[in-house]
Amino acid sequence: MSGRSKSFCGASARPYDGVMPAVTPLPVDEADLAEIRFDDAGLVPAIIQEDGTGDVLMMGWMNAESLRRTLETGRVWFWSRSRQELWCKGETSGDRQYVRRGWYDCDGDVVLFAVEQEGRGACHTGNHTCFYREFGHATDQS
Amino acid sequence: MSGRSKSFCGASARPYDGVMPAVTPLPVDEADLAEIRFDDAGLVPAIIQEDGTGDVLMMGWMNAESLRRTLETGRVWFWSRSRQELWCKGETSGDRQYVRRGWYDCDGDVVLFAVEQEGRGACHTGNHTCFYREFGHATDQS
Repeated sequence: MSGRSKSFCGASARPYDGVMPAVTPLPVDEADLAEIRFDDAGLVPAIIQEDGTGDVLMMGWMNAESLRRTLETGRVWFWSRSRQELWCKGETSGDRQYVRRGWYDCDGDVVLFAVEQEGRGACHTGNHTCFYREFGHATDQS
Repeated sequence: MSGRSKSFCGASARPYDGVMPAVTPLPVDEADLAEIRFDDAGLVPAIIQEDGTGDVLMMGWMNAESLRRTLETGRVWFWSRSRQELWCKGETSGDRQYVRRGWYDCDGDVVLFAVEQEGRGACHTGNHTCFYREFGHATDQS
């Protein structure tokens, strides 16, 4: 199954050594995609939530191509604003995200995906969620 | 207690007729606020999640003033990009949001608040969450 992952997202820096989560692509329906309103830069915020726990893991940005790939491959693809390139979440770190369900909001300008999080977590710091710093606890967290 | 709500957010179009949720302001710590990286327009995306259920209710935008008011008043304040003004969520609709906890992400460029949602829900359509349309179900939802 890891071969299939590679074909979706390119060579993985961290070899896969466990049981790979199921890959469950979502239907790509043009009626859905027509509802999405990308901003002037061609992007839409994408909230990533953990399936089951409901933890909000991170927020990234998707362009039309990364949104389509996310649905088609069942893996989360973002657009990197700093590097100006598509990236498949977790391909380098091993902390992959497997899409289970997805929604778009009433204005069509934000998307939400429920994922199964693999590896250490969503955050490059090693934390499970990128939202590990709580307002009012700056002293504990410094 | 509804008088106190009015003093926070202005006159309410829909009179309050039930038991008002507790107002629980969060500490305003300058060490937290210094970590927030607003974008070129002076804004940061704010994800609103329901306390308890974990449902992601909506995403709005906050500037420095609305973020500070959100912490200080325990009510959710956004910056309306279309109207170019501060707005206190639910003051017109009655669908108020009472802040319970808040976090900021590893890059400091997204904030997350857990709230108690009052009224019908977060969405102006009357839905509990703004993310009521699911990818792959366009036909059911039309």
